[in-house]
Amino acid sequence: METIFTDDYFMKKALYEAKEAFAKGEVPVGAVVVVNNQVIARTHNLTELLHDVTAHAEMQAITSAANFLGGKYLKDCTLYVTLEPCQMCAGALYWSQITKIVYGAKDERRGYTTLGTQLHPKTQVVSGVLEDECAALIQLFFQNKR
Amino acid sequence: METIFTDDYFMKKALYEAKEAFAKGEVPVGAVVVVNNQVIARTHNLTELLHDVTAHAEMQAITSAANFLGGKYLKDCTLYVTLEPCQMCAGALYWSQITKIVYGAKDERRGYTTLGTQLHPKTQVVSGVLEDECAALIQLFFQNKR
Repeated sequence: METIFTDDYFMKKALYEAKEAFAKGEVPVGAVVVVNNQVIARTHNLTELLHDVTAHAEMQAITSAANFLGGKYLKDCTLYVTLEPCQMCAGALYWSQITKIVYGAKDERRGYTTLGTQLHPKTQVVSGVLEDECAALIQLFFQNKR
Repeated sequence: METIFTDDYFMKKALYEAKEAFAKGEVPVGAVVVVNNQVIARTHNLTELLHDVTAHAEMQAITSAANFLGGKYLKDCTLYVTLEPCQMCAGALYWSQITKIVYGAKDERRGYTTLGTQLHPKTQVVSGVLEDECAALIQLFFQNKR
């Protein structure tokens, strides 16, 4: 059976969130958390607005999804995020025991794979979904800053 | 000139917070943030109560201190925390560019030194302050859980 609920489908929702961040002058990273094809959290980076380095899209998504589920472990959940998580977010995802992480663009400098942050052994990772579109939005943001 | 404002003095305040966590059935970790000998944030672990893996003492301390300062960088700040930070908290401290971290007990398994998490090059670290007292509280907590 065909389905509309592909990784591209949900990454587009994360990209929508990233564009919301862009519009607010935030580094444009967006995230959604999905369980059984239902979006239970949608967030974007708010570090500038909140003056808070912990307000990455993923951190808010973890808190928001756990609130929805009423428990701290993100069992059967998939996080879609437009940029590869950093050490902090990967460390939080480790504690959450999330089932799957799907990310778009790589962060060669500060991404968790470069820095060797440990994820939970239960967690699967898929990378490169809508990579070009996710990366282009971030590049545009930093070009405009110069 | 002698001073009462030693590392032990502020770690005792973090220990007080850790005991507050203990009393709530939380893994007993406490933290304070200090700037110019003034405590600007005092927090303890609330992961169980909030059903939120991101609610470590350090994460709340970073957010709380940044709120107090009105900016996201913890310049001239020292974090006192009873247990060595994990990957997530060390990753958040990296982004905060905090000036100094003082911790009590080591976390051999999940501490950031074991897992190789990168701190900001500006950040100094002191470890082992009131180590025995900090470690004993955590051991007591897990003994009671068995």
